[in-house]
Amino acid sequence: MKAVVFDNELKLDNNYAKPTPKEGEVLIKTIMTGICNTDLEITKGYMGYKGVLGHEFVGEVVEVGSKKDENWLNKRVVGEINCGCNHDEWCYKGLQRHCPNRQTLGIWQKDGCFSEYFTLPVENIFEISNNVSNEEATFVEPIAAAVEITEQLHIKPCDKVALLGDGKLGLCISLVLSALNVDFVHIGKHQNKLDISKNAGAKTKLLSEIDENDRKSFDVVIEATGSTGGFETSLSLTKPRGVLVLKSTIAAKEGLNLAPVVIDEITVLGSRCGQFAPAIRLLEKGKINIKPLISEIYPVDKALEAFEKNKQKDILKVLLKF
Amino acid sequence: MKAVVFDNELKLDNNYAKPTPKEGEVLIKTIMTGICNTDLEITKGYMGYKGVLGHEFVGEVVEVGSKKDENWLNKRVVGEINCGCNHDEWCYKGLQRHCPNRQTLGIWQKDGCFSEYFTLPVENIFEISNNVSNEEATFVEPIAAAVEITEQLHIKPCDKVALLGDGKLGLCISLVLSALNVDFVHIGKHQNKLDISKNAGAKTKLLSEIDENDRKSFDVVIEATGSTGGFETSLSLTKPRGVLVLKSTIAAKEGLNLAPVVIDEITVLGSRCGQFAPAIRLLEKGKINIKPLISEIYPVDKALEAFEKNKQKDILKVLLKF
Repeated sequence: MKAVVFDNELKLDNNYAKPTPKEGEVLIKTIMTGICNTDLEITKGYMGYKGVLGHEFVGEVVEVGSKKDENWLNKRVVGEINCGCNHDEWCYKGLQRHCPNRQTLGIWQKDGCFSEYFTLPVENIFEISNNVSNEEATFVEPIAAAVEITEQLHIKPCDKVALLGDGKLGLCISLVLSALNVDFVHIGKHQNKLDISKNAGAKTKLLSEIDENDRKSFDVVIEATGSTGGFETSLSLTKPRGVLVLKSTIAAKEGLNLAPVVIDEITVLGSRCGQFAPAIRLLEKGKINIKPLISEIYPVDKALEAFEKNKQKDILKVLLKF
Repeated sequence: MKAVVFDNELKLDNNYAKPTPKEGEVLIKTIMTGICNTDLEITKGYMGYKGVLGHEFVGEVVEVGSKKDENWLNKRVVGEINCGCNHDEWCYKGLQRHCPNRQTLGIWQKDGCFSEYFTLPVENIFEISNNVSNEEATFVEPIAAAVEITEQLHIKPCDKVALLGDGKLGLCISLVLSALNVDFVHIGKHQNKLDISKNAGAKTKLLSEIDENDRKSFDVVIEATGSTGGFETSLSLTKPRGVLVLKSTIAAKEGLNLAPVVIDEITVLGSRCGQFAPAIRLLEKGKINIKPLISEIYPVDKALEAFEKNKQKDILKVLLKF
């Protein structure tokens, strides 16, 4: 089968071995997938991962490992990407995504979804109703990651909130915050991207427009730029005793000054993957319009070209069609 | 009057102008003060502060700025070090220590207590009962900073807690945690310092003894080393979704990798000064024995020598007697 593989270099393999679902697993025939910046990071060495890339998808269940799961056959599904051991305290609490022995689709010890077929445990998958398009369904994973913020943190209706970063991640979070009636200002460098936010109901501000009145004025600041500079700007916007939500993995190359965290007693809250059910509800109920986030759709045969496209500035989500 | 002043260099000034208390202020005659590492940092340029150093003290009220405060005369007192504007949302909430227009004793825009006399607003001072010694009273400020952790964070009786760093700060926190019946392990590099913790009831462990079982196993980790390495060790000990309390201002010179904060959804909680009332209660009720933390007591005339002593390894608290 066709598979987009990273093994020191990114390649399209036309003869990758088709997997077989084990007991409790399903085999999914891929319909559409999305390229995430994490995929790009992996091609630069992040996590030391080698194998099939990809963790954002919609597909169809075409085979099951256990007879009891036959009801899943022919269902159109999306799936949570972390597979826990199901025998420890994390998994018992439904937090497979923190299980120390987890595998993560296309990121850690498990082949991803950028291939014609792949497997997932049956407990990871969610059926998608007909009124959600394939394009929308592919966004369930990043939308769930945005909803995760509200799972971890009580953002109050009258909190003053800022969101930094107008890339794919920032825009996904913006659409979710607007859908949830949060009062926030989306701060970024690109007016054309901020306009997507604005059209969804957000207040927006160019980074260059930040002034002294914004300094230390926000109860909650969400950092989604992925840059050291973005982290420091976020810190400077956070009120004493406020919360800075760290949504992107920042590996600071230069010095990162955490003194303001102590002086202003700020809470820095790391936030990663989220659960799918509330994200699916947002899409099923038409509360989020993801269309403006799609830049290009490529057939899988042009996957390498799609990856190159994804690196360009001003490009938002690039999808792969199988 | 005598005053220990930093003005590009540290000096003992024998003719510093004695201050006069304004309305609402008291004049305090200094009895004893403690040297904090923040004082040392200031002599290296921290906060850009110039003036009389010092913020840990016990003294006697000898003059009042307003007749209504005469009842404070001749009282032995300690005092909170942040003076707010008393007209903003922070001050209304009793959070003068986060008022953006605050002055901070010996740290920011207000002469400190390393002088024969100094002033503080009357609302900052607390009377000290006779059963608390001058040495003990001088520790109220650092003990309050330790208690602040429990003001910000609910440490549950069954939480697994680690404390990193066996300097003055770490030991103060250790004594407070033991007094509050927290189950924790104090991790440090010096067995002789950890023994002070052990004698107060803590479990202790040398940094070199940390093993794979400790990794990602603590609900709460308190970082009190003040080093980038200490921060990274603390992160590695914190459970996914756990809390890392940042108690020391770390200005990382090298790269500081925050990716684990996001991946493990860790909360990093900055923590600074605390309120005095609960700290005074701990000392009045004899729940904390600070004696093992005192290394030397110098007369103020030998203040520069005391500062040099404070830089030495294995030296804990150095006090100045006036």
